[in-house]
Amino acid sequence: MKKNDATLRKFFQPKSLVLVGASSTEGSIGYEILKSILRFGYQGKIFVVNPNAKEILGVACNPNLESVETEIDLAIILLPKKFVLKGFQECVAKGIKNVIVITAGFKEVGNEGAELETELVKIALKNKVRIIGPNCMGLINTDNSIKLNATFAAELPKFSKTVFLSQSGALGAAVLNTISQTGFSFGQFVSVGNKADVNENDLLEFWGADKNIEVITMYLESFEDGRKFFDLAKRITPIKPVLVLKSARSEAGLKAAISHTGALASSDKIVDTALNQSGVIRVETIEEMFETASALQKFSLPNGNRVAVLTNAGGPGILLVDELERNNLKLSSLSSETEKRLREILLPEASFGNPIDMLPGATSQIYKTAAEILLDDENVDSLIIIFVEPVMVNSFDVLTELSSVQKKSKNPVLLAAFPLPQFWERWNESENKDTIIYKSLEIIPKILKHLWERKNQIEKYLVKSEQSERIKESERVSIQKIFNSKKNNILQQTEINSICNKLKLPIAKGIIVKNFGEAEKKIKSIQFPVVLKVESTEIVHKSDVGGVIVNIKNLKELKVAFTQLQQNLKQKKYSSKGVMYLVQEFVEGGIEVIIGGLRDSNFGPLVMFGSGGKLVELIKDNNFALAPINIAEAEKLIINSKIYPMLNGFRGDKKIAIKSLTEILLTCSELMTKFPEVEEFDINPLIVKAEKGKSKIVDMRIIVS
Amino acid sequence: MKKNDATLRKFFQPKSLVLVGASSTEGSIGYEILKSILRFGYQGKIFVVNPNAKEILGVACNPNLESVETEIDLAIILLPKKFVLKGFQECVAKGIKNVIVITAGFKEVGNEGAELETELVKIALKNKVRIIGPNCMGLINTDNSIKLNATFAAELPKFSKTVFLSQSGALGAAVLNTISQTGFSFGQFVSVGNKADVNENDLLEFWGADKNIEVITMYLESFEDGRKFFDLAKRITPIKPVLVLKSARSEAGLKAAISHTGALASSDKIVDTALNQSGVIRVETIEEMFETASALQKFSLPNGNRVAVLTNAGGPGILLVDELERNNLKLSSLSSETEKRLREILLPEASFGNPIDMLPGATSQIYKTAAEILLDDENVDSLIIIFVEPVMVNSFDVLTELSSVQKKSKNPVLLAAFPLPQFWERWNESENKDTIIYKSLEIIPKILKHLWERKNQIEKYLVKSEQSERIKESERVSIQKIFNSKKNNILQQTEINSICNKLKLPIAKGIIVKNFGEAEKKIKSIQFPVVLKVESTEIVHKSDVGGVIVNIKNLKELKVAFTQLQQNLKQKKYSSKGVMYLVQEFVEGGIEVIIGGLRDSNFGPLVMFGSGGKLVELIKDNNFALAPINIAEAEKLIINSKIYPMLNGFRGDKKIAIKSLTEILLTCSELMTKFPEVEEFDINPLIVKAEKGKSKIVDMRIIVS
Repeated sequence: MKKNDATLRKFFQPKSLVLVGASSTEGSIGYEILKSILRFGYQGKIFVVNPNAKEILGVACNPNLESVETEIDLAIILLPKKFVLKGFQECVAKGIKNVIVITAGFKEVGNEGAELETELVKIALKNKVRIIGPNCMGLINTDNSIKLNATFAAELPKFSKTVFLSQSGALGAAVLNTISQTGFSFGQFVSVGNKADVNENDLLEFWGADKNIEVITMYLESFEDGRKFFDLAKRITPIKPVLVLKSARSEAGLKAAISHTGALASSDKIVDTALNQSGVIRVETIEEMFETASALQKFSLPNGNRVAVLTNAGGPGILLVDELERNNLKLSSLSSETEKRLREILLPEASFGNPIDMLPGATSQIYKTAAEILLDDENVDSLIIIFVEPVMVNSFDVLTELSSVQKKSKNPVLLAAFPLPQFWERWNESENKDTIIYKSLEIIPKILKHLWERKNQIEKYLVKSEQSERIKESERVSIQKIFNSKKNNILQQTEINSICNKLKLPIAKGIIVKNFGEAEKKIKSIQFPVVLKVESTEIVHKSDVGGVIVNIKNLKELKVAFTQLQQNLKQKKYSSKGVMYLVQEFVEGGIEVIIGGLRDSNFGPLVMFGSGGKLVELIKDNNFALAPINIAEAEKLIINSKIYPMLNGFRGDKKIAIKSLTEILLTCSELMTKFPEVEEFDINPLIVKAEKGKSKIVDMRIIVS
Repeated sequence: MKKNDATLRKFFQPKSLVLVGASSTEGSIGYEILKSILRFGYQGKIFVVNPNAKEILGVACNPNLESVETEIDLAIILLPKKFVLKGFQECVAKGIKNVIVITAGFKEVGNEGAELETELVKIALKNKVRIIGPNCMGLINTDNSIKLNATFAAELPKFSKTVFLSQSGALGAAVLNTISQTGFSFGQFVSVGNKADVNENDLLEFWGADKNIEVITMYLESFEDGRKFFDLAKRITPIKPVLVLKSARSEAGLKAAISHTGALASSDKIVDTALNQSGVIRVETIEEMFETASALQKFSLPNGNRVAVLTNAGGPGILLVDELERNNLKLSSLSSETEKRLREILLPEASFGNPIDMLPGATSQIYKTAAEILLDDENVDSLIIIFVEPVMVNSFDVLTELSSVQKKSKNPVLLAAFPLPQFWERWNESENKDTIIYKSLEIIPKILKHLWERKNQIEKYLVKSEQSERIKESERVSIQKIFNSKKNNILQQTEINSICNKLKLPIAKGIIVKNFGEAEKKIKSIQFPVVLKVESTEIVHKSDVGGVIVNIKNLKELKVAFTQLQQNLKQKKYSSKGVMYLVQEFVEGGIEVIIGGLRDSNFGPLVMFGSGGKLVELIKDNNFALAPINIAEAEKLIINSKIYPMLNGFRGDKKIAIKSLTEILLTCSELMTKFPEVEEFDINPLIVKAEKGKSKIVDMRIIVS
């Protein structure tokens, strides 16, 4: 077991460090990192190992590690690749427990590099040494008591309680290069490179436990162990926000899927599901990540998604409203009291709807009073204020007043301002210079959406919910027997029928027969009308080949149907030899839904819910959750689906008890978690009806490993 | 008839102008506009009217307009609202033909203001005077021979061949206030305010005809006459790009719709349709608008949507790829020759797929050579180059080389760079300072998408296509008779049947009867199986009330079906008194589509195509086009629909001739254009089958005014 807290701390708070392979060549990484460390005033002791130089940048060189007499917390290896192993072994011999390997040329370049990387990890594990990298750009801790910039970036962010992990060193460099324009701030930064040892899970756990850290941000290209990340995140996000920018959305899809569920999943869909379900805020750009991180520290969370917009400029107000709607936020309906109070202070030509357009003449005093009136309205969860500098109003005064409104408000107050350029010089010298003022409108609704999502997550989904098991041990054992004795990876209808019966899943009554003769004998248990379906592992989409005949009212029609179906198969060039038939009760009407299950190699078992039937892949109503799910998560799956409005009484249908669907989903979730051999399953369609106990599964497929 | 070219020119190129109501109070609009005009060096003669001042800002004041002796091209009225009418009349008396009314307080504040505005327009029309405004912020012409900044904005854009119309003065102000940060450039700017006279259509026509203008951009909140805008844009976009940022997406939906088509339309959907169909590029943000405008002037249009990405930084490359995919662009598959040539110059550890990651060490020479190799590959339609400044490479050299690659290339080469801040100082002094270098990645795919869209539009859709009429005059006359004698706004089944027959629309055979007895007598014309449907204007969604019984095989079953259907209606509390029934041939199988028509008060007739059947509003496969449509537009409607993959052989269905669907769409388009009384119609579903002549309309509704 790794103990991340104790073993990772020295990476970020070393009392001493050594650069193994520092260089005296200006412009080389081994030179520039030392320069950064010195320039930004590292508070600990610095040692340098280089057998060929006497001193570099004023720091005396040691010929080797052995000759350094003190104990050392952190080694940074900058050696050419061929010397890395030897250098690392010397670190181990010296008793150093934390090593950053900057050098590239390992796993990322092929087999030989991968072997070398494995060798490093083996030695590290044996000696309880932790490695960051290789192929990384180092780390930063801007805390005043540390001041460590062990990267080759020439710019340093301002300190904040945000931390930042980047799986790409170059992306880290791009962020740092432009930090004087963007103003992004963070306390710790680490480039994890190839993640040979320390990975996002270690750091998530480490930072999650650190009380001085308020927001964790990560740029990730892959998950080392997706299920572990999910479990950790689920534990940490109730305490502090975790923001993830996950790229490589377009990576190749899942392995060729047999089920609809598989076809509807993509690795990015699964990542999205895992992040959302564990309470992680997923962002799409670096700007969105850091701006949201700042906002989370500066503003309290809104109590709802109702937003008031106060502006002196109509056009920008309307543009903002469009963006709000795209982000699922809505405009507050203001109370008549609010309108009355606003009318007392604004010009009669102003717009009193929402957005409130005060017209260009609004002064700092009017801005302040109008903002306060809006914040008094209980229909306002957040307030966005836009200010475009007009001729006759002083920007500095307006923003000073608004800054104080923002500080006093218990609701989020977000400011967007378009003053003349000279404003900024004066503002940046003022006591309010740390007020967040957005210079573009588009980012604001995204931030507000994340604040509201987080509030929602915390209240609804990140709560512990105990729940009783649905599959009892005795049932599990008897179902396990069915799996153990299966003949084929795709289960047969009889096997599926008995599994459903044991799980109390409401599968439609049916019999499997060879021909009409057999059907005639066995039909008693089923009432007409019935449906006749072909049963063949060869035929996946039955209705496409005319393999389904519905609404058969009596034995005579059933006989005709058998003949017809065999003809259809013949036409489609399927042999009817050895084919079996399902005679099943005919379920008419109702709403078709799909419930599915899937096992992902990285994130483990998932369940799915959505619109079912023949058009399932066209509608793409694919709502996934990692199993096991609790009641709230099952309900969320249903509510977020496109079919929900129909279930909930779309076009006059009776409102259908969501409860019974929830029960089926919870059972299906356990089907995935209790039976590791289940690879995929599809219930499509489950025909949902308004009356209790009338919903029926008319087709189900289970694929086992 | 307005003659825009002659009458509008003097707004932008006045040889002399007068400010009516200039003020000596610093900070007032009447003062600041004069200050702007003087400050930016207007090249014509300036007069000022103010009876109470001797001079303002060094310009001698005239007590009234009459006392100005010269002829004047342009008047700018800055008077308080109550003096505007009088001031305007004086302008007319003086023979001034172009007047900008800056003053607010007209239509935008209610009835009284609206009346005053109408009065101004009346006088203007009578005297052939053109008005811009009222309630606007003026105009700008940055052309060196004019240098007119007749706004109160204190900043001036750099000159370019882009022009910019803003329906919101405040948005114009926000753009101008921040122009030193954004660097946006344009040659002419006009704030149209209330559009009492001059509106977006006038300016579109005017700018469209001006050979010195290359790109037209507009921020619009409403269309004065949508159909006219559409017609003008269709004529102009083949010659020069028109970019529109249309806000107020969320404005209230259409009037309560009776048809599915109406329910699927929204005013924003119709705007989107009109813009797209007329070749206008619709953008979502101001940044996207101006950056695309610049790119359209700087780059040639790509020949396809295949993009190569060249980078020295992995992470940003991957993030960019995600954005490319979101914008329907794809990565080029590079030729083996390209890979071979790249391997000769890059490190073996580089990534040779696409994106090509050259690793941080790539020098300016390597950048240049690699870019040239990629541009030689015929699979590369556009090239995006990312550069993150590493320690050992000189940014200035790299970007200088890339700038020259960009200039020489016949394909678009877009550069994104993240150098250290000090780079920009040197760059902005260099001869390449006008090279477009993007400072963030997100905007690039949006720009490239628009370039590709424009190429596509020009080649495929903005071509003239003659086409023969489908509805002959004799047919038109006989259909018109049906409309003239209709009893109800919702046409009856018999009326619809005969219209379809005349239009050769393939409606399924059916008879309308009162009861089973009548059906028994008349049924001969139809073959079993049949379907029985209730016909009542009260019942809109028949299947929801059990009003449809399918697959009736003989007279006996039909009798039972009548009883059953009457029972169903009773259960749903519908009286079966006076209800009629449709006995119709039963069309089984096939793919259900919807075809609809709609008449919008602003944009005129439209047709729609999409997935049909019961789930139509759930799938929301709503593809509209303004009628009349040509063959290419009809095909585009089909190809862009969600149902297209199914029509085109989804899951083994035979490929269905798109041709017959196209024919039906063209006929429906004429149904809308030839019969102005048709308000809405729905064909839902049209059941499409692979075999020729087998597709059938099983339900159609026509609503007339």
